This record gives sequence, C-alpha cells and structure tokens, in this order.
Amino acid sequence: MTDETATKPEVTMEEIVALCKRRGFVFQSSEIYGGLGSTYDYGHYGVLLKQNVKNEWWRAMLQDRDDIVAIDSAILQHPRVWEASGHLEGFTDPLVQCLGKCKKRWREDHVREEQLGAADAEGEITCPECGGELTEPRQFNLMFKTHMGPVEDAGSVVYLRPETAQGIFINFKNFLQFSRRKPPFGIAQVGKSFRNEITPGNFIFRTREFEQMEMEFFVPPAEAEKWHQHWMAERMRWYTELGIRPSHLRLRAHGPDELSHYSSATSDIEYLFPIGWSELEGIANRGDFDLTQHAKHSGEKLEYFDQATGERYVPYVIEPAAGADRAALAFLVDAYDVEEVEGRKRTVLRLHPRLAPVKVAVLPLVSKEGMPERAREIFDQLRPLMQAEYDEGGSIGKRYRRQDEIGTPWGVTVDGQTLEDGTVTLRDRDTLTQERVPADELPALLLKKLSEPWKSPKLG
Amino acid sequence: MTDETATKPEVTMEEIVALCKRRGFVFQSSEIYGGLGSTYDYGHYGVLLKQNVKNEWWRAMLQDRDDIVAIDSAILQHPRVWEASGHLEGFTDPLVQCLGKCKKRWREDHVREEQLGAADAEGEITCPECGGELTEPRQFNLMFKTHMGPVEDAGSVVYLRPETAQGIFINFKNFLQFSRRKPPFGIAQVGKSFRNEITPGNFIFRTREFEQMEMEFFVPPAEAEKWHQHWMAERMRWYTELGIRPSHLRLRAHGPDELSHYSSATSDIEYLFPIGWSELEGIANRGDFDLTQHAKHSGEKLEYFDQATGERYVPYVIEPAAGADRAALAFLVDAYDVEEVEGRKRTVLRLHPRLAPVKVAVLPLVSKEGMPERAREIFDQLRPLMQAEYDEGGSIGKRYRRQDEIGTPWGVTVDGQTLEDGTVTLRDRDTLTQERVPADELPALLLKKLSEPWKSPKLG
Repeated sequence: MTDETATKPEVTMEEIVALCKRRGFVFQSSEIYGGLGSTYDYGHYGVLLKQNVKNEWWRAMLQDRDDIVAIDSAILQHPRVWEASGHLEGFTDPLVQCLGKCKKRWREDHVREEQLGAADAEGEITCPECGGELTEPRQFNLMFKTHMGPVEDAGSVVYLRPETAQGIFINFKNFLQFSRRKPPFGIAQVGKSFRNEITPGNFIFRTREFEQMEMEFFVPPAEAEKWHQHWMAERMRWYTELGIRPSHLRLRAHGPDELSHYSSATSDIEYLFPIGWSELEGIANRGDFDLTQHAKHSGEKLEYFDQATGERYVPYVIEPAAGADRAALAFLVDAYDVEEVEGRKRTVLRLHPRLAPVKVAVLPLVSKEGMPERAREIFDQLRPLMQAEYDEGGSIGKRYRRQDEIGTPWGVTVDGQTLEDGTVTLRDRDTLTQERVPADELPALLLKKLSEPWKSPKLG
Repeated sequence: MTDETATKPEVTMEEIVALCKRRGFVFQSSEIYGGLGSTYDYGHYGVLLKQNVKNEWWRAMLQDRDDIVAIDSAILQHPRVWEASGHLEGFTDPLVQCLGKCKKRWREDHVREEQLGAADAEGEITCPECGGELTEPRQFNLMFKTHMGPVEDAGSVVYLRPETAQGIFINFKNFLQFSRRKPPFGIAQVGKSFRNEITPGNFIFRTREFEQMEMEFFVPPAEAEKWHQHWMAERMRWYTELGIRPSHLRLRAHGPDELSHYSSATSDIEYLFPIGWSELEGIANRGDFDLTQHAKHSGEKLEYFDQATGERYVPYVIEPAAGADRAALAFLVDAYDVEEVEGRKRTVLRLHPRLAPVKVAVLPLVSKEGMPERAREIFDQLRPLMQAEYDEGGSIGKRYRRQDEIGTPWGVTVDGQTLEDGTVTLRDRDTLTQERVPADELPALLLKKLSEPWKSPKLG
C-alpha cells in the first residue's frame, strides 16, 4: 500500500459518492423533490467529520498560537462592501445564450475551450446543445441577490456574501480597538458563502453554497513576503499532519496571468482529487488592496499607527483561504482504501483519529447474560470524553465493516472474558491488531492515543 | 445578591450592548458603511461564547444520550419544500403603506396595537410617521427570495430557509435508511436561517439573519404527549444547569389562539430579558403535520414500518427549537453583574465556566526578570487544553477588570514566589478568593473544575 510516488488517485469520485450516500455522510439536498442543483445535505457522520475539520482549523489558528482572533460576520452585508471589494463589477463570468431552438445559456470560455481548444481562442462557436447561433457574451454576476425589508426596489438590494474575507476587512478597525492587537496579527473566520456558479459540480468540490475557513493576517508591508512563505508552509503542514499524503499535495504558484486584481502573489495548495489536481486552498498576498479600497469607499482611516516608532501604515494582508467542504472531501478521498482480508473485501476510511466522526465503537461480542450491560457501562464511561457508538446489532464482522467504512479508529469488544477478568479487546482499524486491555484503562489510553501525532498507514 | 424572586432584570439592554461593543463580543455589521439594519457581527469573545453555547447544545443532544443524530442541510432548498411546509402561503405579515407624504410601510397589527390598544382592534389607523392615510393591508412573505442559475425568472426562484426544521423532515427517509434508526429518535441541526422581518430589533434578540438549534424527535403517536413533557423538562434543565437562574426562566403554554397551524401543543421557554419575558425556545408537538405534507407533495412515503409489530405509522414530531443568538444573549444578561469591591465598581460576567469565552488568564505580576518567561511556560501548558490568554500589559488591577468583563473564571498570577517555590496564585472570578497552588497541578485542577457542576453565585 506504500504510495510515495502517486500521480493519480486510486479511488473514483463515484466510489466516494456511493460511500457518502451509503453511510449517510453527504447526499443530495431536497432529494424527495428531485434534488436541487449542486446543493448537498450532510448526514450524521458528515456533520461530525466536517465539524472535526473545522475544529482542527480553529485549533491551528487559535489554540496553537496567540496572534489570531476570531470573527463571525453576517452573511448579509451592506451592498457598498461589494462595491468597494470589486465584486459588484468584477465578480462575473461571460455568458452566451443560444438564439436557436434550446435558448440555453453557456459559459462562453467553456464553449470556446471545448470547440476551439482554448478558453480565449478566436473563431466561431455554436450552441453545444442544439448547434444554434449564440449571442454576444454578457457579464453575469456570481453573487446571489435578494431584497431586505418590505420593498423590492433598488434601494433594498442586498447580496449573499461570496466570501467571508470582506467581513474581516470592514471590521479591521474594530479589532485594533477592542482586541488591542497590532500587526502582525490575524482575524479568522469560518462560515457559509454563496456563489451562483454557472457550472458547479464534482460532488461537494464546487457547490453554490459552501463553507469557508479564511484568515486574514495583517502585517507591516516589509514583512509581507516573509509571512506569505510562513503561511504556505504552515498550511501545507496542517494537511499533512492530519494525514494527507505529501505525494497527493502540491503547492502551485499562480502565473502572472492567473493572479486576481487584488493579489501580488498567490499560491494554491492543490490536492490530487479523482478529477485531477485541483485547488484545496489559496494563499494570497493581497497587499493593501482591501483596506485601501474600504478606506476610500467608507471614508474611514483603515491604517495602523505604531506609537513606538511613530510610523503610520496600511498593513498588507496574507490570506490562507480554505474550503471546509473540499477539505472534508480531500480527507475522505485520501483515507479511502479497499483491501482483501482473509479472502473478503474490506472498505476502510483511514482517517486521522481526530478527524474520524466516531472515535470508538463498543461492541458486545454475543448476547450472553450480563455482556450487553457491561458493554453499556464501558460505553457510558467513554462517551462524555469522545464521540462513541454502542452497537449490538448483527454479527461482529458486519459491525466491524460498518465501523471501518465510517473510519472509526478503535473497536472495543466485550466478551465472556470481560466478565471474568475485566479486560476487553481493543481492535485497531488500520493494523487490525487486537490486544486485551483492562476496561478501566480505556478512557486514559484512548485520550492519549487521540493526542498523539499520527501517520497515515498508506505511507507504509 | 440572592435573587430568587426577581420579576424584572437588574441590567438594561443598553448596558449589555455597551459591554458587547467595548469588549468586542458583538457589534453592528457593516459599521464603516453606516451599518445594515439589524444585522450583527460577532467579535472574538462573541464567537467563542456562541460556539460554547452550540457545543453545549450538541453535547446535550449527541453525547449525553444516544437516540439523536446530526444533520446539516443546505440553506438553499427546493422551492417545493416551502410549498409543502406552508411557508409560501402562510408565512406572512400584514403590511400597510402610507398614502401620505412619507410612503413608509408598517406592520398593520403593530399600528393597531399602538393606536387602538390591541393588534386586532377595529377602527381607523393612520401613518405613525406623518399621519397620512394607510392602504388596505397586504400580505408580505417573510422569506428572502433569490434566483439560482443564470436566468432570473419564475423557474429559478429559490428562498433562504426561514427555519432549519424542514431540512430535517425532507430527509426523514434517508435517516431511517442510513442511520438504522427507529422511533423514538431525533435529528438535530444547528445552522443559519433568514427571515425578512419587518420589525427586527432588540439587539441580537430578533435579527433577519440568525442561528437556530433545532431538533426534531420522531415518536410513535401514542407517545407524543409523554415525549413533549420529557423535552420541556430537559430543555429547562439545560438552561438552569448552564447557570440561568430559575427565577428568570418560565415555561408558558400557548393558548389555543396562539398555536401554529402545525401544532397541537406548544410551550415557550421564556427568559426575563431586559425587554421583559420573551421567547427563548419553543417546544412544539407538531403531530404528523410535516411528514404528511411532504409525503403529499413529494409522492414519497414518509412513514415507519415496525417489523416487530407489523405496524405502519407516520411518526409524530416533538420539536425543541432554540435560537443560538438569543440563548447567548440570555446567558450574557443573566451573568452580568456590577458590584463594589474595595470602593471600586467591578463589572463581571458570572458565566458558567464551560460557556466562558476564555477559561484562564495567565498574568505575570511584575516584569521582573524570569517572570514573563515562567508565565509563558505555564500558559503554553494550559492552552492546548482550554482557551487561555496571556496578558502582561498594564496594571494587574486593570488586567483583572478586563478578564472579569469577559467572564474568565480563573486568573493565574505569576510572581516572585513562583520563581522560588513553583506556586502561583489562582484567583476565582466570583468569590475573589486567591489560593496558592503548584503550577504543575494547574492543568489537572482546571480540567477538573471545568467538568464539575456549577451554580450561579447570584443564587447566593
């Protein structure tokens, strides 16, 4: 299973989607009404997994260091925010509409790429559906628009935020004041954003409603490059420490033609998804673009005055911007494994124990008198400490297969010997080793295992 | 400070709002652009507080029992969901518009109450602003409407969910299948909802964007009343165990005229806010209304077949539906205290330690050589275990006042004696007692305190 030189993933998107549905991680939203395009609901294990991903992100931002504070800004913001940020004008895709039979709308650049070989190729294009003539391209804004208050007119238009970042920039001054911070310091946020993508897809990789984990790190301009390097290294470390194989992860610097208008340098952390290398997280040097724009549009001074040096400046911003949904997807893909054990196929999620939805399953071996009761006691000891499951239904093999598929790192079986000498069998998801340990020592033992560094068994 | 018979709160909303702004808990959203009506941003301590509220809710739902599973359904759902639920037709307020000078719109029932003494009083009403004539009332839907995809037409209309509950009902069948559950069992969800309220207000009590904590508990119809009682008691217990004084909490059953169309019985948990007794959480017996409606509109069978008894039925639903923002507000209000200590005013948040944004502050007493270094060491030991703060700025008195105002239960001061005998001073936020304890014992001691039951010192 060693996989140090992988260039393509061993698992298909279909297998991941099937597992997610079968075990209730993630499934299509509004399914009983035929579904709603590219929106998804997270079931029990999906909620726990994604919550763990977000918790680990918060841990890295807030608990492992003390130069970052948290924010949770509103999804509905003042429309002038998007004027200043450039989203009202620039956050658009070029659309063409079929003038023929089907009247459908298409991304012009996608049709050009498909029909002429490149997104910016010159030449005639036609409707991919019916071959009809296409209109001239029109700019289509990706923000969802709605109205606040009782009147639907221009004055009441608000947008669902397309990113959480702007909610941080507009509060920069508040944080200088209330949090007594000075650069270098960061403001971190996790929350939903919305983009009316024309072409969402690839399961939860690109959806119109998605959850971001963004942090804006404000630094003296002269230190921007240093901190950009710092955050690229830190974020790569975060993924690999949580078990992503380094061979499936790469850092790719944007070429000059790829850079956003606000950025002087951006690198993407890319993961080898079943759809190929794709962006997991962008780490941008946004310079002073955002604070300067908001200062201009709001009339507020958004700068830092250093009392020690007498220096006044607009901080530069380094931004690691990750997606919680696609991070969860990457962890699932990287953890997915199928092997043969004693002639039977075993599907197992080799998730980092801290990411695993359930940490331990307590399973009475047979329904002999006293055994379920003792198993419940052990379960009741464990569950205040970590997400635990109790399961007495079906054969032990079937129960283990279920736990393997949701990635539960430890299984505790309670058997006849437990009633005699107080020991249980502790089964390891990855090595399949079984050792007998005193039931009383389980809580401390598992807590210790949870706090230890972990290495994916796929690394051999 | 004993307060067993309170009938009105000791703190005003203005004091709470001022503290929230001063310490960066919560402040108006988009402030640099003049703010956006009744939307708020949570700052560092506000994020931590609200996160703790949500964590305690999840703990009560998922860890303290094992008959509930989690869901996180999309905010954007199929529009037919709201047809079935009744929100498209029934989720409306009556609006009147001024025909005079100001053209403003008003809630008809509110104007009637103000001018005629009751929301349903007969008689002439006029514009509260300019005295102008008012139109006939028109029904105004409270759902935010937007469009999904590139075309803004009737076929692309979607709504921001006004409640998380429907995302649970439409997934009922998925959970029967994937989670192998049978009634009685519950599905729990925490997430944002949106209501285009005409009259939001009272700080974070009623906002257009808010976060819900809802759980739908599916039961055999004959057990519905029993489970309704169970959940009323459980939810009252949750608030009081987290420190809300029982005298500031009451359970009020809806009268027949107050009941929603879907409910056969609802009780509100009300808290004595500065604005008076107001709803904190509703606990409804929704009967089989929702599953029946969605079955009718989707054509799917949403029922449970009990293989043991051969019985087939549509479960009844008991729903405890709480607001995360107003719960956070209630905890803040109930914790707020001002007292005189040695002739000086002390403002303190007597929050349950598990709700407190920061658990422990480590404060070197003076900047003597070696002292900040030792304090940092102690801080580094504590912060992987709990939210901790290190602060060496300003006088010790000022630093304590800051921690008191954000509700930090424990303060650790590192002084000269620490360097000699390894002990520190542990200060208790509520009793103001200071005891010397060995620094090495702090982690275990504080973890133990955090896991213990707690009683508000306001109860005397």
